[in-house]
Amino acid sequence: MLAMYRELTVRGVSSDDGTMGEPLRITSRQNPRVKQVVRLRAGRERQQTGRFIVDGAREILRALQAGIVPIEAFICDTFADSSDCRQAIQQIERNPAEVFRVSPEVFAKLAYGDRNDGVIVVAKTPQRDLNALTLPERPLIAVLEGIEKPGNVGAILRSADAAGVDAVIVADGGTDLFNPNTIRASLGTVFQPNVCAATTRATITWLRERSLAFYATRPEAELLYSAVDLRGGAVIILGSEAHGLSDAWRAAEIVPIRLPMHGIADSLNVSTTAAVLFYEALRQRTRQQ
Amino acid sequence: MLAMYRELTVRGVSSDDGTMGEPLRITSRQNPRVKQVVRLRAGRERQQTGRFIVDGAREILRALQAGIVPIEAFICDTFADSSDCRQAIQQIERNPAEVFRVSPEVFAKLAYGDRNDGVIVVAKTPQRDLNALTLPERPLIAVLEGIEKPGNVGAILRSADAAGVDAVIVADGGTDLFNPNTIRASLGTVFQPNVCAATTRATITWLRERSLAFYATRPEAELLYSAVDLRGGAVIILGSEAHGLSDAWRAAEIVPIRLPMHGIADSLNVSTTAAVLFYEALRQRTRQQ
Repeated sequence: MLAMYRELTVRGVSSDDGTMGEPLRITSRQNPRVKQVVRLRAGRERQQTGRFIVDGAREILRALQAGIVPIEAFICDTFADSSDCRQAIQQIERNPAEVFRVSPEVFAKLAYGDRNDGVIVVAKTPQRDLNALTLPERPLIAVLEGIEKPGNVGAILRSADAAGVDAVIVADGGTDLFNPNTIRASLGTVFQPNVCAATTRATITWLRERSLAFYATRPEAELLYSAVDLRGGAVIILGSEAHGLSDAWRAAEIVPIRLPMHGIADSLNVSTTAAVLFYEALRQRTRQQ
Repeated sequence: MLAMYRELTVRGVSSDDGTMGEPLRITSRQNPRVKQVVRLRAGRERQQTGRFIVDGAREILRALQAGIVPIEAFICDTFADSSDCRQAIQQIERNPAEVFRVSPEVFAKLAYGDRNDGVIVVAKTPQRDLNALTLPERPLIAVLEGIEKPGNVGAILRSADAAGVDAVIVADGGTDLFNPNTIRASLGTVFQPNVCAATTRATITWLRERSLAFYATRPEAELLYSAVDLRGGAVIILGSEAHGLSDAWRAAEIVPIRLPMHGIADSLNVSTTAAVLFYEALRQRTRQQ
């Protein structure tokens, strides 16, 4: 314990002559702060603490741009040599976050998979609920219900961002919005303020208060996605690959649609389906009349 | 060694009364056959031996349907309980392949990642080159040049299958066509006879002999994908996410196209781009005039 206290007492305090002290250094993999960060890889710990981890310089930059508040940052100078990384560190240091310099061994313990951009941030989980969404006129909204893999949710968020989808609601998600795999696959687009999480029930109530057309993707649908008019305010609803959409999405005003399937595999990854739908909506909305 | 020989000598020979003997059993993880299979996880070994592995019942069924010839099969009855699996085993047993029954421990060593369908097959690598392709009139062809991740190649093959793309040419691929990750992500559609591998040079020569329109996806293109006519014979060329397409695809008759990008991430996964393009081609080809 004594070693840790020594490491933690030497920075962040102006010395008498006005210069900053040395940064806090962590060289032990057993350091309690390090262990605390590693625990945030589990969804339950994120929920209990209201904190989550952002890995990677690009993702950190996108988080900060989206107003996410950093609490702690861990930098390993051995790896932190990209320009994105230098920019991320500069921006972190403008915040009141505690900044720790860590050894490569400690960083390896903190980092996720093969990421070694040399910087990770612990941030305060922002409120991302239905009330936080603001919609333009004729919005295009995507609802992702019960999609099992955080990587798929992230991939859909990336496509939604590229195609200019106005809002994405993750309904009855199997994990929190800020799962490391979601963040990674989304390239940090999950931090955008037009992404939120809610229950299916609250989502349906909220959407019904607005003047929108509802399209639910179901493999057994008769209508093809390219035969519907996506130019007005529209909601595209995507479900789990294994279980499909829940019955909450069966109602007279909710139109089932599907993509045509010509091959032997007879299925598409949900993130592929999502991208095709989002780009069809964009095509319809921007084409010359 | 003696134990192994005993295991390997008791099956496949009719006994005097005309009934079949017991199947060959492997219970040792050190069995040379087992080691030989594991080595096929490496591309170099696949190339040298002209053999590759098919994991998973569904993929095995698709391989057999596509005329792939099984050489050996390894079955673990503890796991082999799905109907796909029973069907795969039945079909394997109709072939002259050697069939081994293995213990769960041996199967765990043979199997790939978390797959435990209970059956894997070693098969003869089929010739899948340009000469093997047959094209319909007005074909839609996809070329994938230098795509780094086998998983991305597989995902594109799955989308190509679903969208009815007539042929896919993997040009200057970083790995062989039958990498385990490609097979898995493709859901076995990689075995279809309309998929082949070739050099970029041979691909261009072969395509130029046909009457086709060429569209190369490049992020800096001016023309949007939805503004081009994909109803005639057309080639969609997709490149590496990191390095783009090689200069071999710069020529007056090759039209650069791109997807619109509206978000902060400013990029799409290559398999997402591919799916949007394939489905746009299908939409144009099948819409009511």
